[in-house]
Amino acid sequence: MKKTKQKVNAAIIIIGNEILSGRTQDVNVVNISNWLNQLGVFVEEVRIIPDIENVIIKTVKEMNKKFTYIFTTGGIGPTHDDITSKSISKVFNMSYGYHEKAYKLLEQYYGKENFTPGRKKMAMIPKKAGLILNPSSGAPGFYIKNVYCLPGVPSILTSMLGGLENKIKGGKKILTKTITARTVESEIAKSLTKIQNKFFDTDIGSYPFFKQGKIGVSIVVRSTRKKKIDECSNEIVSFLKKKKINILGKK
Amino acid sequence: MKKTKQKVNAAIIIIGNEILSGRTQDVNVVNISNWLNQLGVFVEEVRIIPDIENVIIKTVKEMNKKFTYIFTTGGIGPTHDDITSKSISKVFNMSYGYHEKAYKLLEQYYGKENFTPGRKKMAMIPKKAGLILNPSSGAPGFYIKNVYCLPGVPSILTSMLGGLENKIKGGKKILTKTITARTVESEIAKSLTKIQNKFFDTDIGSYPFFKQGKIGVSIVVRSTRKKKIDECSNEIVSFLKKKKINILGKK
Repeated sequence: MKKTKQKVNAAIIIIGNEILSGRTQDVNVVNISNWLNQLGVFVEEVRIIPDIENVIIKTVKEMNKKFTYIFTTGGIGPTHDDITSKSISKVFNMSYGYHEKAYKLLEQYYGKENFTPGRKKMAMIPKKAGLILNPSSGAPGFYIKNVYCLPGVPSILTSMLGGLENKIKGGKKILTKTITARTVESEIAKSLTKIQNKFFDTDIGSYPFFKQGKIGVSIVVRSTRKKKIDECSNEIVSFLKKKKINILGKK
Repeated sequence: MKKTKQKVNAAIIIIGNEILSGRTQDVNVVNISNWLNQLGVFVEEVRIIPDIENVIIKTVKEMNKKFTYIFTTGGIGPTHDDITSKSISKVFNMSYGYHEKAYKLLEQYYGKENFTPGRKKMAMIPKKAGLILNPSSGAPGFYIKNVYCLPGVPSILTSMLGGLENKIKGGKKILTKTITARTVESEIAKSLTKIQNKFFDTDIGSYPFFKQGKIGVSIVVRSTRKKKIDECSNEIVSFLKKKKINILGKK
């Protein structure tokens, strides 16, 4: 991946034993990454870690030094294994307890008589954190500085992203063009290398696929500059044609 | 996650811009984790990193200090963006070039006349690495000490795992029991915490779900000891019954 000027980066930390154990298929990385791409923010590292306090604290501190934005998912629910909120409060030395606004919000959501101790736990977050509103199920996420803490349930998480857009300041957007061809990587490797060397500040990725019993390769060109993408894609298309390789699609 | 004696751990490093960008949904973590669970090896961290040589080298070195086994996926194909093999050779200061056995194997697979320079690149790996045979598409993976390098294409990767089983020495297997109930987490949080405190060396996870418009919670009990799992699950079932919560399944 070539570095492009004005790139704003991010990292995602997926917190949860169920993802590590293979019990649950993560889909939050794809959802958050695609959403961030549209804002001009690029995910440069993802870590999946267990529900262990010192691992969470160490990971957030380490990633926070390297990336503009940090997104965590998971561990902000009401049960004993939900320890993200407490861990994040320790990262920032912020006191942990009932968050005034979150408490009111949840009390209103459930109604005073149904606001049980179990539900109250979801109002326990770092006390001075900003809230990320949750249009699906009441319990908010939160943020401190550039660290955004979201829930693990994908449908709830995605419903909360819209409310965050005014807080994220992206850079130039990366544009992509994908050329799909009926070929194998070894047939195009040499020509692609030549083109990559010529367009050294454009990112060319090559991804083999098997679809309905047929093989092919997707060639993905990524850059913040449309002109570069067009020039680079044109050269790829013309060498594919010269080699008489069947081009399946361009988009 | 509670530490259990005789636990053997592993980390997975997913190498590929296409996963970070959200273009491709990773499924290799689930496949490798589930396979390792059966061998008594537990994945304790996953990192998804870009195709950048110094990032790959640094990540492998760092993880190698902390985990018994390391699995990498992606970046061992024939194109310019496949830089895992070269990077791993640098991690171990092993010379990189045509691997005698891999070269012969691929020459035989493609036939001498069709063994093009593009295809030959797949025989370029750390020269003294052990090979991981590939029953689907010829090109082998490789390993050096406890670091196993697999391809990114999920169907090829999974076809190669079987050949590795005699190399991985697992510990005690973790057994799991899942109790599914028609409830919400906040309703059961307090009782679950009590049980977790009693069974402090058993791992109890609680995962809300939405299925066909209905909500529920999966409670997953994990331990290397069957007796502990049974005792702990029985207590969970009995408090659910006491609270008149509908139990949907136990397995």
